[in-house]
Amino acid sequence: MNRDKIKNAIRNIPDFPKPGIQFKDITTLLLDHDAFSESIDIFCEEFGNSEIDLIVGIESRGFIFGAPLALRLGCPFAIARKPGKLPAETVSAEYELEYGTDSVEIHKDAIKEGDRVLIIDDLIATGGTAQAVGELVTKCQGDITGFAFLINLAELKGSDKLKPHPVFAIIDF
Amino acid sequence: MNRDKIKNAIRNIPDFPKPGIQFKDITTLLLDHDAFSESIDIFCEEFGNSEIDLIVGIESRGFIFGAPLALRLGCPFAIARKPGKLPAETVSAEYELEYGTDSVEIHKDAIKEGDRVLIIDDLIATGGTAQAVGELVTKCQGDITGFAFLINLAELKGSDKLKPHPVFAIIDF
Repeated sequence: MNRDKIKNAIRNIPDFPKPGIQFKDITTLLLDHDAFSESIDIFCEEFGNSEIDLIVGIESRGFIFGAPLALRLGCPFAIARKPGKLPAETVSAEYELEYGTDSVEIHKDAIKEGDRVLIIDDLIATGGTAQAVGELVTKCQGDITGFAFLINLAELKGSDKLKPHPVFAIIDF
Repeated sequence: MNRDKIKNAIRNIPDFPKPGIQFKDITTLLLDHDAFSESIDIFCEEFGNSEIDLIVGIESRGFIFGAPLALRLGCPFAIARKPGKLPAETVSAEYELEYGTDSVEIHKDAIKEGDRVLIIDDLIATGGTAQAVGELVTKCQGDITGFAFLINLAELKGSDKLKPHPVFAIIDF
C-alpha cells in the first residue's frame, strides 16, 4: 500500500484554527478517490482479521472513515456525538479542552455487554476525545479492541492516553 | 431490494428535539449491517449509471451515506459543513431556520466549473439545508445532477424547494 500517496493528498493549512497550529486538512484526500479508497483498504487490511463486533465513529470526520470500514468489514456501526444530538437514552463522558471541558455521547443501546469495539476517527492529537469515547465503551460494558486513525500527530503523544489499548494510524506527522 | 427492511430499521423517537416532532433515528439502521449495506446498494443502483463527477455530503449524517457511496461509485467526495469548520477558502450559503438563519460552507476548490454534482444527506425535511448546499454548487459553477436522501418527510414538501433538480429518496415517511 502506498502511504506516501495518502500523505501527499492531505493538505497542511498553517495557523488554523489559530496561530501556530498546522491543521491537517483531509478534504483534499476525500477529493482524491484513489487515495481515499486506499486509506479504507489499509484499515481493512489491518482489521480484517480482528474480531470486531462494532465500529464506533467519532463525530464528524470519524464518520467518513468509520462508515465505509464498517460496511467493508460487515460490522454494525455506531456514532459518538456531541451532547444533545442523539435522540434516545445516552451515556456521556467528559474530556478536557484547553479551556474548560466538553463531552461526547453514545446511545446506551448501541453497545452490548462484551462487544469488541473498534473506535475510529480521522486524527489523534492529544487523544482526549478518543479517550472519552473509550470511556463510553467501558461504561456500556463493551471491550475496547483498539483505536484507528488516519493521522497521528505523533509529537503530541495522544496514544499514551489510550494505553494499554492498541492504537493504529496510517500516517504519522 | 427490500425497502421495508430499511424502513423497519429506522427508529421513531417522539418529541425530539422538541414536543410534537417525530424524530427519525437512523442510528438503529447503522447498527443493522444488512439494512445499512442495502441502503448503499440502493443508492448505487440508482446512481451507478449517472454521470457524476463529485458527491457532496452534508454535515454530519450525510457523511455516513455519502462517503461509502462515493467510494463505491469511484467519485471524489466533498463535505459541506457548518460555518468555521473548513480550514481553506470557502463559499457560503444561508438558509432559514424556524427562528433566524444558519449557513453552510464548502471549500471553494472542492468543486470545479462544470462538475456534475450529486448532493446527499440522510433526511430531507423542509429542504432548506439541501437547497443552500445546492447554492454552494451553483456558486462554484458546478451543475447539480440531483439530490439523494435516505428519508423524505414527504408531507413537509421539501423536494419542492429543490426543483427542477431530481430528488431521490429511499424511504418516504
